Amino acid sequence: MTILRSATDPRWIEAALSDLDATLADHAHCEKKAVATAVKLVADNPERPGLVRALAKLAQEELQHFLAMIGEVQRRGKALAPDQGDPYVQQLLKLVRNGAPRLVDQLLVFAFVEARSCERMRLLGERLPDERLRELYRRLAQSEEGHERLFADLAVEVAVQAGGEPARAGVAARLAELAEAEAAIVAALPLLPRMH
Amino acid sequence: MTILRSATDPRWIEAALSDLDATLADHAHCEKKAVATAVKLVADNPERPGLVRALAKLAQEELQHFLAMIGEVQRRGKALAPDQGDPYVQQLLKLVRNGAPRLVDQLLVFAFVEARSCERMRLLGERLPDERLRELYRRLAQSEEGHERLFADLAVEVAVQAGGEPARAGVAARLAELAEAEAAIVAALPLLPRMH
Repeated sequence: MTILRSATDPRWIEAALSDLDATLADHAHCEKKAVATAVKLVADNPERPGLVRALAKLAQEELQHFLAMIGEVQRRGKALAPDQGDPYVQQLLKLVRNGAPRLVDQLLVFAFVEARSCERMRLLGERLPDERLRELYRRLAQSEEGHERLFADLAVEVAVQAGGEPARAGVAARLAELAEAEAAIVAALPLLPRMH
Repeated sequence: MTILRSATDPRWIEAALSDLDATLADHAHCEKKAVATAVKLVADNPERPGLVRALAKLAQEELQHFLAMIGEVQRRGKALAPDQGDPYVQQLLKLVRNGAPRLVDQLLVFAFVEARSCERMRLLGERLPDERLRELYRRLAQSEEGHERLFADLAVEVAVQAGGEPARAGVAARLAELAEAEAAIVAALPLLPRMH
C-alpha cells in the first residue's frame, strides 16, 4: 500500500515517452541525487546507527541504479545532459519544518519522493515500447519498492526515540498532511519528459 | 609505485593505536566523505562519461568500506562520534587553482588523499594488535590501492581532452608540485588518532 494520495496523471507517460532521452537522463540525475541525499542524511546523523546503516545500503542501491541509467544513456549514444533541477522535490523540501521535527519531516518528504518515483518507474515498466527497457524498469521499480516504507519507518523510529510512543500518532498525522500537499504539488506541475 | 613524496612518520601508528575507537570512527567519516566527493564530482561533470562511470563505481566501493567501518564501530559498542573535519584534506583543497585546470587540480588532490589514506591503511594492516582487524585493513588497503592511479589517470585524461598531448607534461609537473606540498602538509600536522 502506497502513501501517495493521488495516481499520476495518465498523460504523464505520454510526455515521458515523447522524449525518452530526456526522461532517462533526468532519471539518472534523480538516482544521483538520491545517493547524495542519503549520504547527507548519514553525515548529519552519525549518532543514529540504524539510520546510518539503512541509508548507506540504500545509497549503494541507488548507485547501482545510477550506473544502470548512465549505461542506458550511453547506449543511446548520448552524454548525460546537465541536471535541470527538480521543482517537485524543491517544493516538497519547502514543507520541512525547522526545529525538533526537522529530521522526521525530511524522512517523510523523502518517503514521498521515493513513492512517486517508484510509481512512475512502474508505469515506464508497463508502457515503454522497448522490451529490454520495460524489463529494466520493472526491476528498478521492484528494487525501489521498499524505499518509501524504509523512510516512513525511519521517521517513526526517530519520532518515537524523541517523544515516546505517543509521537507515533503525530507522525501519522504529519504523513497525512504531506500526502495532501504532495498530491497538490504533483497536480500543479507541468507534464514533461522527466521523472517528476 | 606511489605518488607520495614522503613516508608517514612512524610515530603516527602509535597515535592511531592509542585511541582505536577514535581512529576507526575517523576512518568511517573518511569513507563517507570519499563517497560524497565522488558523487559531487559526478554531479559537476555529467558530460564526461568515463569520469562519471569510474567515480560512481568508486563511490560504491567506498560505501562498502563505510559499511565495514561502521560495523567495526558498532561491534565495539560505540555510535559514530561526530565528524571532526579533516585539516589535511582542507589544506590540500586550498591548493586547487580556479579556472581552466580546476578539475585537473581537484583530481590530483584526491589522488594524494587516496594515496596517503591507503598508505596508512596498510600500516594499520601490519600493526593492529587484533588479527581480524589487521585482515580487514589489508583487504581495505588492497581495494583502495588502485584509487590513487584512477584519480591521476582521470586528471591526465581531462587535461589531454582540453589541451591535447602536450598537456600531459603539465599534469606531471603539477603532480610533482603537489607531491611536495602534500609532504609538507603531512609533516606539519600533529600526530593524532585519525587517518590524516
